[in-house]
Amino acid sequence: MLVKDRLLIPGPSQVPPQVNAAMLRPIIGHRSGDFAKFYEQVAQKLKKIFQTENEVLILTGSGTAAMEASVGSVVQKGDPVLCIVTGKFGERFVELSQVFGADVTVLEYEWGKPYDLAEVTKVMSEKKFKLVCATHNETSTGVTNDIASLGALCQKYDSLLLVDAVSSMGGMDIKTDAWQVDMMVTGSQKALMLPPGLSFVALSPKALAVIDKNEATNYYLSLKKAKKAQGKWSTPYTPNVTLFYALDAACDMILEEGLENVFARHALLANACRRAVEALGLTLLADEEHASKTVTSFSANVDTEKVRQIMKKKYGYAVAGGQDQLKGKIIRIGHMGYMDVGDLIGCISALELSLKEVGYPVELGKGVAAAMAVIYEGVRA
Amino acid sequence: MLVKDRLLIPGPSQVPPQVNAAMLRPIIGHRSGDFAKFYEQVAQKLKKIFQTENEVLILTGSGTAAMEASVGSVVQKGDPVLCIVTGKFGERFVELSQVFGADVTVLEYEWGKPYDLAEVTKVMSEKKFKLVCATHNETSTGVTNDIASLGALCQKYDSLLLVDAVSSMGGMDIKTDAWQVDMMVTGSQKALMLPPGLSFVALSPKALAVIDKNEATNYYLSLKKAKKAQGKWSTPYTPNVTLFYALDAACDMILEEGLENVFARHALLANACRRAVEALGLTLLADEEHASKTVTSFSANVDTEKVRQIMKKKYGYAVAGGQDQLKGKIIRIGHMGYMDVGDLIGCISALELSLKEVGYPVELGKGVAAAMAVIYEGVRA
Repeated sequence: MLVKDRLLIPGPSQVPPQVNAAMLRPIIGHRSGDFAKFYEQVAQKLKKIFQTENEVLILTGSGTAAMEASVGSVVQKGDPVLCIVTGKFGERFVELSQVFGADVTVLEYEWGKPYDLAEVTKVMSEKKFKLVCATHNETSTGVTNDIASLGALCQKYDSLLLVDAVSSMGGMDIKTDAWQVDMMVTGSQKALMLPPGLSFVALSPKALAVIDKNEATNYYLSLKKAKKAQGKWSTPYTPNVTLFYALDAACDMILEEGLENVFARHALLANACRRAVEALGLTLLADEEHASKTVTSFSANVDTEKVRQIMKKKYGYAVAGGQDQLKGKIIRIGHMGYMDVGDLIGCISALELSLKEVGYPVELGKGVAAAMAVIYEGVRA
Repeated sequence: MLVKDRLLIPGPSQVPPQVNAAMLRPIIGHRSGDFAKFYEQVAQKLKKIFQTENEVLILTGSGTAAMEASVGSVVQKGDPVLCIVTGKFGERFVELSQVFGADVTVLEYEWGKPYDLAEVTKVMSEKKFKLVCATHNETSTGVTNDIASLGALCQKYDSLLLVDAVSSMGGMDIKTDAWQVDMMVTGSQKALMLPPGLSFVALSPKALAVIDKNEATNYYLSLKKAKKAQGKWSTPYTPNVTLFYALDAACDMILEEGLENVFARHALLANACRRAVEALGLTLLADEEHASKTVTSFSANVDTEKVRQIMKKKYGYAVAGGQDQLKGKIIRIGHMGYMDVGDLIGCISALELSLKEVGYPVELGKGVAAAMAVIYEGVRA
C-alpha cells in the first residue's frame, strides 16, 4: 500500500516546502559581494536563535564537523579536558579530545540519566580543565542536561565550556550567552529544519582568545580561519551555498513563528508523546525532569526492531532504534523542527498498530487518545 | 502554532513530491518531436487508468472544460439530452446542455441519494435521447452512481453516454469500455494526484462518429480538433507542458502501485473514515451501498463551518463544507489520490479536537480508534 515517507527519527528531520523551494535558487559565486551580503543577513538571524550577541560561525560539514572544529581549535597536546558523558554523543567528545592529544578526564553516566552536578563540581574543584565538554540534549537517549549550572562552574574554575546542542538548537530554549557557554555547537538537520550539511559554532570572546593563540592542528575545520573569513562575511573554503539559502528560509520560519512559540510547540508535542507512550504501558527512558523536548525514547517488552520495521513499511513512519548499548532495546521518536500535531498523532497511531501486530496487547487508540488530551488543553491555552 | 497545510478537501488534492519534481523539468516546444514522443508515451499510460482501448484526449483546462467540450462537441441545437442529477455537478450538465441549445430532460434526485434506475429506464423507453449525462462520483455529496447499468440502457436505446468521473478516476474501479461509456471525463486535480489545469475525455468510436459529422459550435474546446491533433500526438492549441510532465510521473506512480492496490487503498481509507464518523455519533450522508471511495460527507448538530475553521487554523487540515443547498450543513473529507493512513488518522483527530472545542460531546480518540480498527484489519489482509 502507498505510504508517504514520514521522517520522525531524531534527525535528519523533515524539511519544509518553503526551505526546499529556497534551495532551487541558482548558485552564486561564494566570493561575490552578493554572497557576502547574504551571509551577513543570515548571520544576524542565527544569532537570535542561538540567543547570543557573539558571532555564529557556519561550517560546511555536519554536526560532528563543528564538534571537531571546536575541540581541535582549542585543545593542544596534553591539555586537560573534562568530558561529561551521558550517551553516544557525549562519547564523541572523548574520542575527539583523544585525537587531539588531550589529557582526558571522563565522567560517564548511565544512558538515560543526566549528569550529576555534585560529582562534576567535585572533579572540577580538584583539577583545572582547559575545556569542559557536555551534551545539552543527548540524542541517543532523549535526556536533556542542565547547561546553566555547568556554565557557572566553568566560569568559577576558569574553563572553557563546549556544548553539543545538535539535536536541540531551534527547538528548545537555549540561552548561549546567559548560560555562559563558550562554544555552542549545532547541526543543520535537526530542529533547524534543514537538510544535513551545515554546522554552526557560536564562539565567546574567551574562546576566541584561546583559539587565536593556539598552534594550528587542523585546517578545513579551523575556527581561527573561519572566524577570520567571517570578518569579511566570507568562508575560508567553498561553502554549501544552497544550504545557506535554505538556512535563511528556515531562520525566517522560526523567527516568524517566534522562538517562544517554537519552544512551546516542541514542549507540547514532547508531552503528548510521553503521555501516549505511558498510556500504552511502555517504559519511558528519561525521567520527567530531564526529558528532551525534541526526542522521546522508550522501551517495550517486544521486538522493537520488528515494530520499527512495520511502522516504516506499512505506515511510512520512520522512527529510530537504540544505538550501541541500547541497540534493539529502545525506540526513539524525533519530534523536532518541522513537526506538527498531525505528524505526532499519525506516528502514535502507527506505533499502536505495529505494536498490536507483533502481539503486544494494545487497545487501539489509547495512546492517541492520551496524546489528544494533552494537545486539546495545550492548543486551547 | 505552526501547522502544516494538509489538504483533504475533495479536490484539488495533494501532489506527491515526485510529481512536483517532474514539474521542474524545462519547458520544451509543444510542436517538437520530443513533445510528440512524450505525449504518445503518456497517452498509453492514461488508457490503462481509464481501462479503455480508445484514445484519451488531454485538454488544457480543468474538469469543467472537458465537460463542456464533451457536451458542446456532441449536442446541436434542439438535440434531446437527458441529464441525471444527483448533486451540484450533475446540475452542471444541465447548464451546459442549455448553453448548447439542447432539449433537456432533467431527472433530479435528492442530494445524498443515487439515481433511480427504474425511473431512468422508464424515461429512456419513452423518449429517445441523443445524449445521456450522468455523474459517476458526485463530489458534492459523496455518492457514487451505478454507471454500468446506464451504459447498458444507452446501448439498448442508442444514446451516447457522457460520464463525469472527475472525482473518482484514478481512485475507483472505472471500466470505461466494459461499462460502455462513450465519453468519460475527468480532471487532473483529484485522484490523479496532479495540480488543477488538465482534463481528459476518453471517446468511443460511436461518440467520435457523432462528433465528426457535427457543425462546429465550439473552438478551443472542440473535441474534433483535439482528436485530429492527437492523431499526430499534438494538441490544437498550446498545452500545459509542465502538467504533461506531472501527468507522466503521476501515471507512473499509479501504475507502479497497481490499479487494484490503488482502488483497495481508497476503499480502505473510505471505510475507516466512515466508521470514525459513525463512532463520533455524526450522520453519514450517503448510504453504505452508494458511498464514494474518494469523499465522505456527514452532518453534525454543530456549527460545521466553525469546526472546519478550527480544523484548518489549529491543525492545518483543510476539509470542505457543503455546496449550494447543503451549504453549512455538512462536512466533506476528501481521501483521494496521494493519501495514506497517516493523513486520515491525523484528519480524524483534528475533527475530534475541533468538534470538542465547539461543545460537541466527544470522547477524544473514539473516532480515531474506530478508524484504526478498520485499518488494522485492512493492512494485515
